Amino acid sequence: MFKKFKRLIIGKPMKSTEAQEQKLSNAKALAILSSDALSSIAYGPEQILIVLASISVIAFWYSLPIAVGVLILLAALILSYRQIIYAYPGGGGAYMVAKENLGTKFGLFAGGSLLIDYVLTVAVSVSSGTDAISSTFPELHPYRVWIAVGMVIFITLVNLRGLTESASILAYPVYAFVIALAVLIITGLYQILTGHVSAQIHPAIGTPVMGISLFLILKAFSSGCSALTGVEAMSNAVPNFKDPAPKNAALTLSVMGIILGLLFTGIVFLCYWYGIAPQEKETVLSKLSSSVFGRNIFYYIIQAATALILILAANTGFAAFPLLAFNLSKDKYMPRAFKVRGDRLGYSNGIITLALASIFLIIVFKGNTENLIPLYAVGVFLPFSLSQTGMIVKWLKTKPKGWMGKLAINLTGALICYLILAIFFITKFGQVWMSLIFIPLAVYIFHKIHKHYTAVGNQLKTDISEKLSTITSGKNIVIVPIAGITKVVKQSILYAKSLSDNVVAVYVGSSQESIKELEKDWRKWDTGVKFVGLMSPYRSVLTPLSQFIDVVKEKADASHSQVTVIMPQFIAKRWWQRFLHNQSGFLIMANVLRRRNIIVTIVPYQLEE
Amino acid sequence: MFKKFKRLIIGKPMKSTEAQEQKLSNAKALAILSSDALSSIAYGPEQILIVLASISVIAFWYSLPIAVGVLILLAALILSYRQIIYAYPGGGGAYMVAKENLGTKFGLFAGGSLLIDYVLTVAVSVSSGTDAISSTFPELHPYRVWIAVGMVIFITLVNLRGLTESASILAYPVYAFVIALAVLIITGLYQILTGHVSAQIHPAIGTPVMGISLFLILKAFSSGCSALTGVEAMSNAVPNFKDPAPKNAALTLSVMGIILGLLFTGIVFLCYWYGIAPQEKETVLSKLSSSVFGRNIFYYIIQAATALILILAANTGFAAFPLLAFNLSKDKYMPRAFKVRGDRLGYSNGIITLALASIFLIIVFKGNTENLIPLYAVGVFLPFSLSQTGMIVKWLKTKPKGWMGKLAINLTGALICYLILAIFFITKFGQVWMSLIFIPLAVYIFHKIHKHYTAVGNQLKTDISEKLSTITSGKNIVIVPIAGITKVVKQSILYAKSLSDNVVAVYVGSSQESIKELEKDWRKWDTGVKFVGLMSPYRSVLTPLSQFIDVVKEKADASHSQVTVIMPQFIAKRWWQRFLHNQSGFLIMANVLRRRNIIVTIVPYQLEE
Repeated sequence: MFKKFKRLIIGKPMKSTEAQEQKLSNAKALAILSSDALSSIAYGPEQILIVLASISVIAFWYSLPIAVGVLILLAALILSYRQIIYAYPGGGGAYMVAKENLGTKFGLFAGGSLLIDYVLTVAVSVSSGTDAISSTFPELHPYRVWIAVGMVIFITLVNLRGLTESASILAYPVYAFVIALAVLIITGLYQILTGHVSAQIHPAIGTPVMGISLFLILKAFSSGCSALTGVEAMSNAVPNFKDPAPKNAALTLSVMGIILGLLFTGIVFLCYWYGIAPQEKETVLSKLSSSVFGRNIFYYIIQAATALILILAANTGFAAFPLLAFNLSKDKYMPRAFKVRGDRLGYSNGIITLALASIFLIIVFKGNTENLIPLYAVGVFLPFSLSQTGMIVKWLKTKPKGWMGKLAINLTGALICYLILAIFFITKFGQVWMSLIFIPLAVYIFHKIHKHYTAVGNQLKTDISEKLSTITSGKNIVIVPIAGITKVVKQSILYAKSLSDNVVAVYVGSSQESIKELEKDWRKWDTGVKFVGLMSPYRSVLTPLSQFIDVVKEKADASHSQVTVIMPQFIAKRWWQRFLHNQSGFLIMANVLRRRNIIVTIVPYQLEE
Repeated sequence: MFKKFKRLIIGKPMKSTEAQEQKLSNAKALAILSSDALSSIAYGPEQILIVLASISVIAFWYSLPIAVGVLILLAALILSYRQIIYAYPGGGGAYMVAKENLGTKFGLFAGGSLLIDYVLTVAVSVSSGTDAISSTFPELHPYRVWIAVGMVIFITLVNLRGLTESASILAYPVYAFVIALAVLIITGLYQILTGHVSAQIHPAIGTPVMGISLFLILKAFSSGCSALTGVEAMSNAVPNFKDPAPKNAALTLSVMGIILGLLFTGIVFLCYWYGIAPQEKETVLSKLSSSVFGRNIFYYIIQAATALILILAANTGFAAFPLLAFNLSKDKYMPRAFKVRGDRLGYSNGIITLALASIFLIIVFKGNTENLIPLYAVGVFLPFSLSQTGMIVKWLKTKPKGWMGKLAINLTGALICYLILAIFFITKFGQVWMSLIFIPLAVYIFHKIHKHYTAVGNQLKTDISEKLSTITSGKNIVIVPIAGITKVVKQSILYAKSLSDNVVAVYVGSSQESIKELEKDWRKWDTGVKFVGLMSPYRSVLTPLSQFIDVVKEKADASHSQVTVIMPQFIAKRWWQRFLHNQSGFLIMANVLRRRNIIVTIVPYQLEE
């Protein structure tokens, strides 16, 4: 049943050899690798306005100088990442750059924050996509959390089926979004230039604002930086570009930077000019486009393109998280399960973990992007900073031709990133303190896991040049717990006798009478197997049996014998029948295995009805 | 950890020999065995008024003739049950009376409806107790469901600790309730007689009512019958009385009937006279006592006594359900687990099942007694009817002295019960249809379980006079699945060789290279054990391994050999480490055991770190 359902949803299993890679043209790469970054425009400008709105609508003009600051940061990041692309043509994720240049510890810090970051990519993008939908259809507003959860489940299933990241279909929504926003900005500017928009609805630039402070401006600025999440994507995917890959990747990154900058500036400017104020039930982008177009077909296209690119952005999380988990798992920092490819060649465990974690976040934060974004931004800027720092160390160590200039660029990038991080922690501590707990916790867990795997590896190592010794059958003591004389017991005793001459049947009874009665029958049966009756006044079978096995084990250890416990176990034919029998056989097995080096054998008896 | 917590909550385990019984004096028995019946007064009169209120307050005078009908029914039931007490001095539950006289099928119908009925006893009593509390403190009204669930959990824990049903402490709340209601009724009557209550606030008896119909009157009457739930308790507990037990039990039953009748009549009359109308947020009893006393200390005492007796009534469900489940389990109609005594000698599984089921009902019905009571009443009247019918059959079969009179009494009782059932299904079908599904379903499940246990018993029977045959070690084919060459594998191979000369190591690889590489190492190791490499293009270990085992098993069957699969399995030291290793050993074990008569041996390797 479950299997059939799984096949229907996930599809038939694929052979390992079916895995393949496909090189991307620049135009396609631009679309596919920039959905995360470009989609940030759907919430970045809004975040600035939300902070400014906490003072007064008059403060909205500050969004313009803040946008300039964001643009400078964007330029610095693009320049820095171009250098990372050239330095790591094999794909330079923050985990790898930091690990290689700053050491494992920093690599793990980058890895841990990236993992958390990908969860937040999914949660934020999907929540934001839901906002785009519920802004369009306000009657859906009460169901936002469930719409978001439904979207995550949909993306999860698509990824479990296996989605080639390079599928052309993923490129169209990005083009559509860029074109739609470009039309929106051009139309808006045209309306402004032709005087269709009153200048009264926005405060003049430079209007003095009561209560504004550097603190608030920095807070608004750091909020705006959330528009830059995702710019690192190109540098991780250099090998997917056509040759010469680094050059193509760097070029594409620059083009993306320009598009991102233009769209961001355009939207921030129009929002200012049209006097758009953030509201709970409608996104700023929705308000802006309905102001420019009215609620006509263009409005709906923009909303649809926004929702789609946000879903794609979430999808990038689904590409990145399982891959990073795989790499961490390969390096023994995460459970082995993340290394296993599923039926459709995706890393199913990574996909499912990401889905569960992001659904958890969406439910806990009630799909509210405003509360998720600061945490997300920290998760992004920490690896940003670490890779920049890694590059600085790299230039200082290797000192290639022109290293001074390169160093300067990464140094600027690093300093700005650290500054942003500092601003985050100063201005939004209440929202980002969690990262101080969860990122170190992740690193701690990585270490614990690594230590365990290393220890296990050492313990299991064996020397194949050594000859095998032998256990003689007489040195095997066999214990058979029984509950009466039945066919199952008969089968087990038969098997036990074939293993050893030293077999003991053990019965745990709750009264002396029941023990004596069974002993009498046992004698009559005349199997040649010893009978031991244990009295259990508290009706527990496990406790007296364990104690007995312990005693036998101790004696066996003294004579270098092996102890085997044979559990007669009948196996029900149908699932519901399992509830009709106590599963004490398996309980005893688990108990015995956990505590001692004792071999457990299950002699099954399949019930026929 | 879990164990310590369990000890703290439940207490230390008790020896089987500590079980004991204590005979009850009539006064104590009256209190302890009547909490269920007497507590029904807390909701019975209200149910009548709720139906009448659906027409008009003028219809309230109909509550008086309806109460007379209920009293007649009560008298009939008491007379019938007196006869059951004398006929079944060993305790005549509906299950037993119906089984003995009408056959197993009807016994199971009675048993099934009683089980459901006990769940409803708990759900209704606790919900009603919560109503008493939230009527007193209206600010608690929004938390009713959680208060009710909390109460069930409390009663469950008390029962898991083991509560002697005969504990004196259980008697006091019943006395308190009876005295409190008696004071309320007497005070009310006194106020009426002294003219303190205006005659204007109630409709005169006989006032014509628009829209009244026989249907509605019958509906109100059947609602009022819910006040009679619980009168059967005495007849189940005859052996707990002092000698002469049947006589004492019959006497006590009659006294209880009189008290119940008086209190019921008194409350219905006062409600009529004081013009009490049912409301959502306050019980009728609460309104009545605040009308009579005002919200003074007497009011609070009445509310407290009501809440307490309702909790006690729920507790009777906790005494009855596990015992009936035990009896059904003994007769092989319910899972064996219900036969097991817990640490404190209570039937823990029955207690926990009842708790979960009643919590489920409380949550689904949102603690709303009005919706639960019709279902409850059907669950009560069906066993009533079946035991009466059983008694009729008994008299007809045995024809003892004076059987005609006895027959007449039980016949009247049976007819009235069937009539009530018919009225329920006609007037409240929307609320009671579920019993038409769940009771037959329960009976169906009983049969399925019985069939299974009987089949198992037959399959497992073995003849101890038959001599044991032997398996020779050469006839044992041993398969050892391996994932590489490690200490765990070494240990398993060593053990395998001690069992048989016919050992095969099986490796499942996802590529030809990995298989060849391991094979080369294996040859070097020179263990004398054959190596089989299986290619798994779909990365599944289970599928190719199962197929291989199937093939081996087929060959083994042909040569009458036994197949043993030895699973090397390392056992992590700490719980979290289990997530770091795939548990495929146990998966393979479950798969192999389920499908074939193959013995599975687990060779554990305890990790030290």
